[in-house]
Amino acid sequence: MVSVNENFIKLPGNYLFSEVAKRVSAFKASHPEVRLIRLGIGDVTRPLPQASVEAMHRAVDEMAHAESFHGYGPEQGYDFLREAIVRHDFGELGIGLSADEIFVSDGAKSDTGNFTDILGSRNTVAVTDPVYPVYVDSNVMGGRAGGLLSDRRWSDIVYLPCTAENAFIPELPKRRADIIYLCYPNNPTGTTLTRAQLKEWVDYALENGSLILFDAAYEAFISEDDVPHSIYEIEGARGCAVEFRSFSKTAGFTGVRCGYTVVPKEVSGTDGQGNRVPLHRLWNRRQCTKFNGTSYITQRGAEAVYSPEGRKQVRETIDYYMGNAKLMCDTLRRAGFNVYGGVNSPYLWVKTPDGIGSWEFFDRLLRDVHVVGTPGVGFGPSGEGYLRFTSFGSREDCREAMDRIAAWKV
Amino acid sequence: MVSVNENFIKLPGNYLFSEVAKRVSAFKASHPEVRLIRLGIGDVTRPLPQASVEAMHRAVDEMAHAESFHGYGPEQGYDFLREAIVRHDFGELGIGLSADEIFVSDGAKSDTGNFTDILGSRNTVAVTDPVYPVYVDSNVMGGRAGGLLSDRRWSDIVYLPCTAENAFIPELPKRRADIIYLCYPNNPTGTTLTRAQLKEWVDYALENGSLILFDAAYEAFISEDDVPHSIYEIEGARGCAVEFRSFSKTAGFTGVRCGYTVVPKEVSGTDGQGNRVPLHRLWNRRQCTKFNGTSYITQRGAEAVYSPEGRKQVRETIDYYMGNAKLMCDTLRRAGFNVYGGVNSPYLWVKTPDGIGSWEFFDRLLRDVHVVGTPGVGFGPSGEGYLRFTSFGSREDCREAMDRIAAWKV
Repeated sequence: MVSVNENFIKLPGNYLFSEVAKRVSAFKASHPEVRLIRLGIGDVTRPLPQASVEAMHRAVDEMAHAESFHGYGPEQGYDFLREAIVRHDFGELGIGLSADEIFVSDGAKSDTGNFTDILGSRNTVAVTDPVYPVYVDSNVMGGRAGGLLSDRRWSDIVYLPCTAENAFIPELPKRRADIIYLCYPNNPTGTTLTRAQLKEWVDYALENGSLILFDAAYEAFISEDDVPHSIYEIEGARGCAVEFRSFSKTAGFTGVRCGYTVVPKEVSGTDGQGNRVPLHRLWNRRQCTKFNGTSYITQRGAEAVYSPEGRKQVRETIDYYMGNAKLMCDTLRRAGFNVYGGVNSPYLWVKTPDGIGSWEFFDRLLRDVHVVGTPGVGFGPSGEGYLRFTSFGSREDCREAMDRIAAWKV
Repeated sequence: MVSVNENFIKLPGNYLFSEVAKRVSAFKASHPEVRLIRLGIGDVTRPLPQASVEAMHRAVDEMAHAESFHGYGPEQGYDFLREAIVRHDFGELGIGLSADEIFVSDGAKSDTGNFTDILGSRNTVAVTDPVYPVYVDSNVMGGRAGGLLSDRRWSDIVYLPCTAENAFIPELPKRRADIIYLCYPNNPTGTTLTRAQLKEWVDYALENGSLILFDAAYEAFISEDDVPHSIYEIEGARGCAVEFRSFSKTAGFTGVRCGYTVVPKEVSGTDGQGNRVPLHRLWNRRQCTKFNGTSYITQRGAEAVYSPEGRKQVRETIDYYMGNAKLMCDTLRRAGFNVYGGVNSPYLWVKTPDGIGSWEFFDRLLRDVHVVGTPGVGFGPSGEGYLRFTSFGSREDCREAMDRIAAWKV
């Protein structure tokens, strides 16, 4: 009799965004006349950069003729894209990487989820709290989470609370962690670490033989000087960190699907005999076995993001979203809310008024001003008492939503 | 200290196609004047159907404007594609499936590899021998293979030999198997099962509570009436089988990346208490957590394959490849070779002459007539003494390669 992976059964069925969708649907059904404004889910709304559009048209045309047709590409991505990534995303920061340390994929969600394939099931995992749910759920599936506690924490996972009380700076774990997820600029809080703060984590990882899985999907939104764009800006990180990047938020690729993972050749784990095994070799084997590369057309679209026109167009889009973020932060603060993030990130992390719960604030916003946010507690216990807004909407929607909130008595 | 998944370390480093590439490179380096003809790797060479090209251009244009932009799509695929699949690939065979039993992905390689995520690590796995390496390797990674034996078999995997002696019809396993991989039309042998033969497997699975993972990536090449296009043509298969399909070989999507997996709602596995757990729910959870959907542009291209023009164009391409296959089979037989496959499949499985080994035959073909095949033994011990040719090349190359072989004295 075929048996299932029992770790899957432990996962609670209700996922944050489906619960949000359910409540929104119910409200809409009973209030069909209302115009809802959705500032909840982190999906972009601006079109692709024109440079990517043109590059993808050209690539589609290439696929239409036998002479220029592209079949299977390298599982790791085409050199033209890997080299552009190395040159622009890292070279310009003074970081030396080689193209074969870049693994192009269909997105950072796949990579952060799949990367755990190559890690042992007995590693202790640490996550910041609140946290992007994929990190936790993929480790539940991989048997590293233990059992679900009554506060929705997992018994074997080390949670690192990030709240206004500690200025959203996680403390080093008290219990030794083998795998540490860090996402900066952070989803969901929109907060960042300085170079000095990130260095403490790199030092910790090097001392303890830990692996840092660094999610930099939002690095393009960084505006302040002392915020690192890549963990490899920190000395020693090549020996302990893997970095995930995405074209989703940068270039509007949420529907096109492209990201990449950096696995420096020095990063390693141990086998049962204590021997060092380079993760680069294992990840390469994983990708060659279970992945067949990203669409040629998509990769040409991603390459164009690095052209002079592409960079200018991406900059304009990011500036547009960050203009929204500024407008939102300003209005919310004038209305008396405590707001975090929104400076180096498209995410605003809003403290609920009068200590009410995340879901209650969500429900009131929906009912009274018809604005949809994401309840902070859905990202982890330390998100209770917060709500996430994203600045990915249109300027008009952001402005109207803020006007409604400003005119509102909670 | 972070530890690695030790199952990965068990995997031998040398992969079939890299060894082939190494030998070909070495030969080319010492014989730069020679024109090699490659009939080894299963990649297509004909361009995309014009209908898909046009649909992808339209989709790229949609992505260029905020009003028609598509961000995150459903992880399971867009309804427009899932419904086209259900209607054409199954409805026309008289098979009833609902659109939500279809999971669109970036290809059958990812899906066959990732599907094992949701299955327990103690299941016994059976594969035909020879076999597509991904089935075995992904189960090695998942800890279901045991140790590697000296003949390159894995101690815990049940091998079902398929050779000329049994007309390439696998016998039911003697040791009970929980997970059974069947790929028909078969890669690498190009052989098929009749409906009656496939029914024995479905009956076996239903009796034993086994799961059949049915890879139908090559169904579009079927030309004979009694060969099933889908396992769901067999009564009871909805209760025991998952089917993998691909646009790669059908519509030339090897570089575009799209496939899908059918998970009927009835298929289930057991948890530790013997309760039935539907695999549909688990696979949906897996995909929602570790995957973010396939490119909108790609899915529009795949949808167009089902348009009247698209179907005509796909038919022409398949006829072209099957014309190659017929030419190759005919010439090789006239030259005295025993050839299998090539009728319902783009693959020809050629018995080596005089009982020589697969690699020796590969080397002689390379050295004497400058034609590249794939050594059968690379697909498993029972592939020893065979070599795989694919019919995906150009007509001219196939003809010239066959002329060279016909004029050759082995």
